Amino acid sequence: VGDGELEAIRAIRSLLPPLGPGEIGIGDDAAAVRIRGGHDDDPLLLAADALVEGVHFDLGLSTLADVGWKALAVNVSDIAAMGGTPLDALVTLVVPRALPLAGFYEGLAESAEEYGCRVVGGDLSTSPGDTLCVSVALTGRCDGHQPVSRAGARPGDTVFVTGPLGASAAGLRFLISPLAKSVPDVTERLIAAHRRPRARVREGIAAARAGASAMIDVSDGLATDLGHLAVASNVGVRLSEVPVAEGAELEEAIGGGEDYELLFAAPAPAVVRAAFAEAGLRAPIEIGTCVETDGAPVITLDGHELSGKGYEHLIMW
Amino acid sequence: VGDGELEAIRAIRSLLPPLGPGEIGIGDDAAAVRIRGGHDDDPLLLAADALVEGVHFDLGLSTLADVGWKALAVNVSDIAAMGGTPLDALVTLVVPRALPLAGFYEGLAESAEEYGCRVVGGDLSTSPGDTLCVSVALTGRCDGHQPVSRAGARPGDTVFVTGPLGASAAGLRFLISPLAKSVPDVTERLIAAHRRPRARVREGIAAARAGASAMIDVSDGLATDLGHLAVASNVGVRLSEVPVAEGAELEEAIGGGEDYELLFAAPAPAVVRAAFAEAGLRAPIEIGTCVETDGAPVITLDGHELSGKGYEHLIMW
Repeated sequence: VGDGELEAIRAIRSLLPPLGPGEIGIGDDAAAVRIRGGHDDDPLLLAADALVEGVHFDLGLSTLADVGWKALAVNVSDIAAMGGTPLDALVTLVVPRALPLAGFYEGLAESAEEYGCRVVGGDLSTSPGDTLCVSVALTGRCDGHQPVSRAGARPGDTVFVTGPLGASAAGLRFLISPLAKSVPDVTERLIAAHRRPRARVREGIAAARAGASAMIDVSDGLATDLGHLAVASNVGVRLSEVPVAEGAELEEAIGGGEDYELLFAAPAPAVVRAAFAEAGLRAPIEIGTCVETDGAPVITLDGHELSGKGYEHLIMW
Repeated sequence: VGDGELEAIRAIRSLLPPLGPGEIGIGDDAAAVRIRGGHDDDPLLLAADALVEGVHFDLGLSTLADVGWKALAVNVSDIAAMGGTPLDALVTLVVPRALPLAGFYEGLAESAEEYGCRVVGGDLSTSPGDTLCVSVALTGRCDGHQPVSRAGARPGDTVFVTGPLGASAAGLRFLISPLAKSVPDVTERLIAAHRRPRARVREGIAAARAGASAMIDVSDGLATDLGHLAVASNVGVRLSEVPVAEGAELEEAIGGGEDYELLFAAPAPAVVRAAFAEAGLRAPIEIGTCVETDGAPVITLDGHELSGKGYEHLIMW
């Protein structure tokens, strides 16, 4: 997917009618919409994310049950990144060949139970191709606060991440190179992080309630996703630290992606820490500060501009 | 997609928690859900339908703009088949190769404008395969009446269809065999019916308000879709007529599919006719009557059991 498609995305935005006040459209983790004719003042969250065989998963490295888990979890993560609670999912499968799908549905149901959401419909189609595609759409709702977009960070805000990064990429490294030097328990945790990522729903709600000004989930890697937040908010970010998961490497933490920790900015760090403590959650890690930018937002670590592209597997709308 | 997958679908139903009163889950044109924590008594409708290259469209016979139109229209049709109004769509593209997508988005935007709905998000992924997949999820809402499922038809109800059938299949026939004997204006209309099907939103609302007991859209063909309605409602259907679109053949009307007319049962045919007239809509065509069944529902036409499978391109959840 190249520049032509990015132009096409800009084209579709220009073709569509503008959204109403308080609504969020294409370009965030999830959309936030008012239901026309409805009687609810709170917006409905809508997320959609696809997993494509050979791009997002490899059935030699993950089971179909893992894929079922992950297909829902990555969408739950998008709802979490708005500060929302996931509700109802539609699951569409495009199946290229005879695959025993029972395992997929088992993993999907486990994921639905874990996140307290329901699969209420979807579609199932054969495909003449050879690539399994799973596409999930998920609703969600914010309770008592507005959805947190990517666009509200301000200079001076503190930047947090909900946990150390790089575990999924390191897990993939061990799966691809089974002879890599591994530490029994640690390696298993890393592999589990890759196969069955966890969405941070309670953390997202705590951050939103603590006044988070902008939030995104780490799906494409810290550098890429922090870049999205910085561009949307028109700020730079001065990083003080990159927390690396045990057994992972710094470059995996910066560029690895698929960690699904939440990255957020907030004006009052003490309020954030208190909210997480009160909710019984692990304290979020303070990793930097938003700064003024004149021109393109720049993310720096120890005075150097952060590079390290993520998987770039997805271009989020 | 064979028996194993049908079993898997039954498996996922058994794995999932039961729905609440008034909710509709897997197995209808769209789901109807209450928003947990919300303040709206009316359910939200959720539909998802995918179009797969080589199964649902052929880029030698339709343009990418046609595919964009149709991808949304078939989902609008699912919302219409519940008696709902379409609201907000998520559009996910899995793109196997360099395709200029601007045309797709133009067709999508035209379709969104036609049906008064919005594209508010989605996903875009590359694919290592060679098959373009478009997967749409769409919300909807019923205003002042309950959603109409497939399951409420009762013996004695009159069966209606909102228009003559077979146009899409006939259009496809002319596209595939351009030397087939064609009548200029008629052939163009048939081809347009195939490339740019119309969803019957106003008709669905009129039918629901007139007390329709069961409704489904004709996506897989009259025989197949009437069969779905009959099975879900546990009735047989005695057909008196199959209305055939001008230029189409009887077997295309029975088995062709993709007409997206609405098929519904209603206890009071005079009320239905009055509701359609009042809304300024073409009168729906009375095609038969629901009858008691002891055992498997049977659909008969002139005393013969109706056969003629549809495209069977999709297995609806």
